[in-house]
Amino acid sequence: RNYSRKVLSQAASSLLPAMLLLLLCLLLSPQGCSTRYDPTWESLDSRPLPTWFDEVKFGIFIHWGVFSVPSFGSEWFWWYWQKEKRPSYVEFMETNYPPGFSYEDFGPLFTAEFFDANQWAAILKASGAKYVVLTSKHHEGFTLWGSKYSWNWNAVNVGPKRDIVAELATSIRNRTDLHFGLYHSLFEWFNPLFLYDASNVFKTRQFPTAKSLPELYEIVTKYQPEILWSDGNGNAPDTYWNSTGFLAWLYNDSPVRDTVVTNDRWGVGSICKHGGYYTCSDRYNPGHLLPHKWENCMTIDKRSWGYRRNTQLSDYLTIEELVKQLVETVSCGGNLLMNIGPTHDGRIDVIFQERLRQMGVWLSVNGEAIYGTKPWRTQNDSVTPGTVYAIFLNWPVSETLVLGDPKTIIGETQLIGHKGQLKWVSLGEKGMTVAVPQLTPNQLPCQWGWTLQLTNVN
Amino acid sequence: RNYSRKVLSQAASSLLPAMLLLLLCLLLSPQGCSTRYDPTWESLDSRPLPTWFDEVKFGIFIHWGVFSVPSFGSEWFWWYWQKEKRPSYVEFMETNYPPGFSYEDFGPLFTAEFFDANQWAAILKASGAKYVVLTSKHHEGFTLWGSKYSWNWNAVNVGPKRDIVAELATSIRNRTDLHFGLYHSLFEWFNPLFLYDASNVFKTRQFPTAKSLPELYEIVTKYQPEILWSDGNGNAPDTYWNSTGFLAWLYNDSPVRDTVVTNDRWGVGSICKHGGYYTCSDRYNPGHLLPHKWENCMTIDKRSWGYRRNTQLSDYLTIEELVKQLVETVSCGGNLLMNIGPTHDGRIDVIFQERLRQMGVWLSVNGEAIYGTKPWRTQNDSVTPGTVYAIFLNWPVSETLVLGDPKTIIGETQLIGHKGQLKWVSLGEKGMTVAVPQLTPNQLPCQWGWTLQLTNVN
Amino acid sequence: RNYSRKVLSQAASSLLPAMLLLLLCLLLSPQGCSTRYDPTWESLDSRPLPTWFDEVKFGIFIHWGVFSVPSFGSEWFWWYWQKEKRPSYVEFMETNYPPGFSYEDFGPLFTAEFFDANQWAAILKASGAKYVVLTSKHHEGFTLWGSKYSWNWNAVNVGPKRDIVAELATSIRNRTDLHFGLYHSLFEWFNPLFLYDASNVFKTRQFPTAKSLPELYEIVTKYQPEILWSDGNGNAPDTYWNSTGFLAWLYNDSPVRDTVVTNDRWGVGSICKHGGYYTCSDRYNPGHLLPHKWENCMTIDKRSWGYRRNTQLSDYLTIEELVKQLVETVSCGGNLLMNIGPTHDGRIDVIFQERLRQMGVWLSVNGEAIYGTKPWRTQNDSVTPGTVYAIFLNWPVSETLVLGDPKTIIGETQLIGHKGQLKWVSLGEKGMTVAVPQLTPNQLPCQWGWTLQLTNVN
Amino acid sequence: RNYSRKVLSQAASSLLPAMLLLLLCLLLSPQGCSTRYDPTWESLDSRPLPTWFDEVKFGIFIHWGVFSVPSFGSEWFWWYWQKEKRPSYVEFMETNYPPGFSYEDFGPLFTAEFFDANQWAAILKASGAKYVVLTSKHHEGFTLWGSKYSWNWNAVNVGPKRDIVAELATSIRNRTDLHFGLYHSLFEWFNPLFLYDASNVFKTRQFPTAKSLPELYEIVTKYQPEILWSDGNGNAPDTYWNSTGFLAWLYNDSPVRDTVVTNDRWGVGSICKHGGYYTCSDRYNPGHLLPHKWENCMTIDKRSWGYRRNTQLSDYLTIEELVKQLVETVSCGGNLLMNIGPTHDGRIDVIFQERLRQMGVWLSVNGEAIYGTKPWRTQNDSVTPGTVYAIFLNWPVSETLVLGDPKTIIGETQLIGHKGQLKWVSLGEKGMTVAVPQLTPNQLPCQWGWTLQLTNVN
Repeated sequence: RNYSRKVLSQAASSLLPAMLLLLLCLLLSPQGCSTRYDPTWESLDSRPLPTWFDEVKFGIFIHWGVFSVPSFGSEWFWWYWQKEKRPSYVEFMETNYPPGFSYEDFGPLFTAEFFDANQWAAILKASGAKYVVLTSKHHEGFTLWGSKYSWNWNAVNVGPKRDIVAELATSIRNRTDLHFGLYHSLFEWFNPLFLYDASNVFKTRQFPTAKSLPELYEIVTKYQPEILWSDGNGNAPDTYWNSTGFLAWLYNDSPVRDTVVTNDRWGVGSICKHGGYYTCSDRYNPGHLLPHKWENCMTIDKRSWGYRRNTQLSDYLTIEELVKQLVETVSCGGNLLMNIGPTHDGRIDVIFQERLRQMGVWLSVNGEAIYGTKPWRTQNDSVTPGTVYAIFLNWPVSETLVLGDPKTIIGETQLIGHKGQLKWVSLGEKGMTVAVPQLTPNQLPCQWGWTLQLTNVN
Repeated sequence: RNYSRKVLSQAASSLLPAMLLLLLCLLLSPQGCSTRYDPTWESLDSRPLPTWFDEVKFGIFIHWGVFSVPSFGSEWFWWYWQKEKRPSYVEFMETNYPPGFSYEDFGPLFTAEFFDANQWAAILKASGAKYVVLTSKHHEGFTLWGSKYSWNWNAVNVGPKRDIVAELATSIRNRTDLHFGLYHSLFEWFNPLFLYDASNVFKTRQFPTAKSLPELYEIVTKYQPEILWSDGNGNAPDTYWNSTGFLAWLYNDSPVRDTVVTNDRWGVGSICKHGGYYTCSDRYNPGHLLPHKWENCMTIDKRSWGYRRNTQLSDYLTIEELVKQLVETVSCGGNLLMNIGPTHDGRIDVIFQERLRQMGVWLSVNGEAIYGTKPWRTQNDSVTPGTVYAIFLNWPVSETLVLGDPKTIIGETQLIGHKGQLKWVSLGEKGMTVAVPQLTPNQLPCQWGWTLQLTNVN
Repeated sequence: RNYSRKVLSQAASSLLPAMLLLLLCLLLSPQGCSTRYDPTWESLDSRPLPTWFDEVKFGIFIHWGVFSVPSFGSEWFWWYWQKEKRPSYVEFMETNYPPGFSYEDFGPLFTAEFFDANQWAAILKASGAKYVVLTSKHHEGFTLWGSKYSWNWNAVNVGPKRDIVAELATSIRNRTDLHFGLYHSLFEWFNPLFLYDASNVFKTRQFPTAKSLPELYEIVTKYQPEILWSDGNGNAPDTYWNSTGFLAWLYNDSPVRDTVVTNDRWGVGSICKHGGYYTCSDRYNPGHLLPHKWENCMTIDKRSWGYRRNTQLSDYLTIEELVKQLVETVSCGGNLLMNIGPTHDGRIDVIFQERLRQMGVWLSVNGEAIYGTKPWRTQNDSVTPGTVYAIFLNWPVSETLVLGDPKTIIGETQLIGHKGQLKWVSLGEKGMTVAVPQLTPNQLPCQWGWTLQLTNVN
Repeated sequence: RNYSRKVLSQAASSLLPAMLLLLLCLLLSPQGCSTRYDPTWESLDSRPLPTWFDEVKFGIFIHWGVFSVPSFGSEWFWWYWQKEKRPSYVEFMETNYPPGFSYEDFGPLFTAEFFDANQWAAILKASGAKYVVLTSKHHEGFTLWGSKYSWNWNAVNVGPKRDIVAELATSIRNRTDLHFGLYHSLFEWFNPLFLYDASNVFKTRQFPTAKSLPELYEIVTKYQPEILWSDGNGNAPDTYWNSTGFLAWLYNDSPVRDTVVTNDRWGVGSICKHGGYYTCSDRYNPGHLLPHKWENCMTIDKRSWGYRRNTQLSDYLTIEELVKQLVETVSCGGNLLMNIGPTHDGRIDVIFQERLRQMGVWLSVNGEAIYGTKPWRTQNDSVTPGTVYAIFLNWPVSETLVLGDPKTIIGETQLIGHKGQLKWVSLGEKGMTVAVPQLTPNQLPCQWGWTLQLTNVN
């Protein structure tokens, strides 16, 4: 299977009308120029996605928290152990911990002694990713920053004794071309205020009032994330969470109102329907173009977002599989958010480092076919000749590659990373055939996937 | 020095007017009979102290919490270590714990594995005390019950994994004649919401709204304490704490409205002035009669309320000193609240057990001179002959005891615990002389202090 | 019951023959003067007990080790838990520790952070004791010194990281009039070399060769104990342990050959029969005079030598009971070795401090009737008039005390601590009657037991 | 660079003389047939190396011990920290552990909860290795089996509470074609008996007598290792260790006398000179043929044998580098012993799993050019036509490969893993040229290195 898309080359020109509007507005009414959104989905959904997000294509998701201490099974450890009482989790605890050991007792063991935000940023940067999303708080409720509303259940009071969010934000921003985002779980499995509200069928709102909303305002104000990756509606409607109210503030008045991107997980019914870009489901990869910007969040460890110790090599996606995920996702208009799970002591395990660097090596050759591109099929109304990239993941034994589209090109065909033009023949309605060069293993520009660049496609 | 007081013998008769009033009220207006209090000090201070409190005279105070884990120096460990940075505390931590170890890290070490509420109740009962006051939450903010508003910083989630308040309440109430009370600190040294309010000179009220008030309602409703021993105003006025609003609810509508007793620590300016009985200061022992009911809260360990490991025998008051405290306090109209500090693993150290049992032995002989008595000097308008008790702490070498008052008696003079009447001679204006018997060590009814009973005093 | 004995007043004169012999010896053969003992019981048993031991009468036994960490049940914790599998021990471990937690894992928890040898020495000194015996190694095999032969199972490598034996030896010796002794267990419950030998019915001797004998030489050479309190034969004969060989070295060539005292626990069959003084059994108190010097080793905590946390006040002997033990023991020719168990963190619990200081207070009044005395009945061949002490533990209600012996005295009768002579009357064959004075509680010289001093007894 | 060697094809025939000798011997002297060795190097060095060892070529070394707990810096952690006081080690401890924390305190933290010997065996087997060498005891002295001579400093008493050696031995032997060996360090850095001997310039021999020799006999007898990989002479001569005496027993009388292989690290002066095969130095790779069998022991983590947490991807050799090591080593007559370091909790980190499986994949294609082969240049006296393998690590751009030797072949030339014969042309004295096929990336039989098979070389 091949994947094609077109580079965004005229981004600047499309900003012109908006700039004119802004100018007019400033002349007429200096205070009220920017559009203000109402706390309704109708209004909020009308906000255009800030353009940077579609251009970056590839981000790294980081799941880190107290669940990284047992690092057994899943980041849903607490739930599976104590709520579902899954046998493997129960047995793990019975075998290794004293009776009465609670999940909270893992808190002080979240030591993070090797956590070096600059080192992380270097590793993340080397992957070719353009954005990073950190779990500022997962369903366990433990905040990686010193939340005023989560006293003694946050990383400054317990465990690391450091403001993880602040440290990583700074290091990420010190790297050029890396955007910093925060994941935030609305609900918390075992927070007694949430459980109280749930027992009242969400007719009381003690939890959002005392916890989730104050914290959302706090992280936006303190850390100014460019992505707010919401998750975990806890089966409560957005009205319980006051999601529209919060988003109106975020879009109208927050310090990141102009650049912030959010997703679609803001309450029962909002997913794949309201908010910013769509995530729809974990590991969402529709296989076709979508009219709305979307993101495929997935994991290198096939079965867990948080770090697991009990893994085998076969639990990790190979670099071939990861490249395929990226190519498939971007060619269908999505962004790829590839997840890693650091260890409780603050390390990015070497197998993750390897996958990230492999991806970076691949993107250093093929990045122009990924970053800033637009899916080919959406460009069919374009009248300007452009460049099309076709990526192939299996080298053709026949030494020729058949493309179903385009039918013909005005310019040249090249294998990215390899000098010289390739020969091609138009097949009429059936597309075109390109002759790939004969290369020894050492002459290949890269492994795992290769890109044809077709210029001046008509 | 001798201490005298009169027994309350006509308690029942004094209830008669109140009972008549109640009857009348019920006839006229079934719903609105009980007095309702306004949320003003004027109104709240007018509430009569429930009578049981003055009768019981002697209670045990229990300071238990996370501070019992380091059990070093004082229950103010956290403050002295991290705020005042007292050298001995800083050195203790540097010597025995890894860098970065925080007070919160002591939480999981509060194991309480030997805590047996029934055993505690037996020990407390054996002391002769009639009430028990437990620190449901000290300034550290750690709640000994599973507070909804203190998630992951309470004894059900962290450390004991048990509802300490519930267990002790049940065991205490299973003993006849023991009242159960709860100490509660309004402020919390390091709660970020409190610090936020303090930084705003208490113009914001995030902390009382989210934490202290919900918790006060919670413990009263769940555990129905007969004493609510408030402490720790954090230099904030009662208006910040909404103390009068809470007390109005406590007196009007709470499940313990008829029996609950409170003290005077409800905000800056209230101590020794407003609320229920007066505590005025720690170890308050004025040495003379007071017009308002008061309590002397003091400690067996001279220097700490919480358990300290670094103690010598000389740090503990002797039983002679404790009996003296009790006698002095009760003779001046106060109650004695004698403090013990259990260990982190749930034990009442044997030295405390010994002091408590010694007190119990003494009260088993002399209790009638303590419980239910009234200070002698306040009875000078009494026209009914009564019984006066005179307690002496040093046995007279001369074998005669001179009492300045009364001048004469109609009835008999006895040494409690010893059969037979004593001879006495009136000294006219100078009182009377009583001949104490010659007793060998084995014939003494008790040690540490002895009581003369004078009946039919005119 | 009363107890009588006579003071040793002519000790010096009895040394004269020995001094003459020594002088003669030095003239004739400078190198070979001191008696040398053969490694046979016959020869070793002929060694006179160094005189200091009978004079000191009262010592403190200290049981401290890794068993002080669980401090549950008994210092035999390891054996009861893992060998006998007593339910209470098994349950204690299952409830409080993770599966697989071993006794060895308690080692690092033996923290001793409050251990202050000078403070201990002060407390021990204040008890009036004249010697101290520390468990240098109990049956667990953990050595309180840095044994070369017990690598990584000793207090210098594991737990305290301090040479406990060295620190305490120094502090004890800095106090005047305190002798320092070491307890040493021959066998070790679970040492694989001992188990191997035992499985060979002690026909192999890997354990004594590699462990127990090298360690005995090591502690004697390094710490020069004045008492070597042997224990724990492990059902092996003295020939297995090579006890006679070791003792011959100890008596002939060791640095403490002139002063060292040992007991009788040197192999199956030796107890109460061979070695130094007799201990016969724990808490040995025969109730009559014995022809051989003996010692009553007993515990303040009735049921355990090591510290137990799970105790009640009733588990501790009262001071009255302890004084009775001392008086009974000394009057029958024994020494009392009274045991305390320090805590894992290095403290002498306050209840032990109290008992020790109470004993010290009593001895400060009555010490002359204890130290350096000789049992009265052994003095019947004495022709020199001497002093007899009669101690009574219950004050006579009749105010007269009848002594069965002596029948008459030439000198005076006094109550120690009280001025003035007492009247007495001879009862002929039935002894004598002494009139005790009438004293108020404050006039009593002491509590718990009182001494009559009869001078110039014929 | 290319590497060539010849397969051993007539192994069986070479055994004939030995079999005849054995037969003769049995007829003449049934008891004394096998050669007996004297405890001299001359005699011991004359023992032929059991043939299996040269055939297997590739083994995995496993460094596991208490050093895997800090897993910081190196398996020499203890030495670098406490003897050399290297700043990074000292700082690591000061930052993360309480004062006084000792290396011994790491013992209980060596939890090994994920250790599954069968899983390890599967991973090791998949690497293509034919033998495994486990550190039964490193210089720290901690034994991975329950040594009788290392009580409380072994894996059965402390940490895992399991007999690691026994478990792995069983699992390894359950896999076909895997030999099990044990590494054993003679000296122990901090063993007080060793230090005592060292302070006596090795004139005393307490340590070998009590510890190293008994343990060597113990592991050979209990676990019957096929390799005894000795290490760590502690600057003491073989006479101190009694190496020749032990080896004489090993070769004459031990249960593995017929099959066991040892190395050359048996005391100062023995390395690269005496014993079994030569190791000479760590990471020994001479680059030319040696007359004596040798082994290149090296590490995947470039800088450490034990697991290190503080690593970056660049610290690990790539699979290309590892294949090169194997090819270079085997072509020069050595065996490759490639080291991995498991984690303290019993896992083989996924990056090691990946390298091992990559090696296994490579060997599954190219194994016939490795296993059982003999170096080509040593075969120059061979008169029988044989097979030669030439491995090349860079694919020739020119599509022809020039071999300096052989000059010509009688049989065929093939690329292993690829069907069909290759064309070749003799270059006379200059060797021969082989035409390699044109293959797309997917057609390559493997990555990282490819093998030419030349049959019937003359």
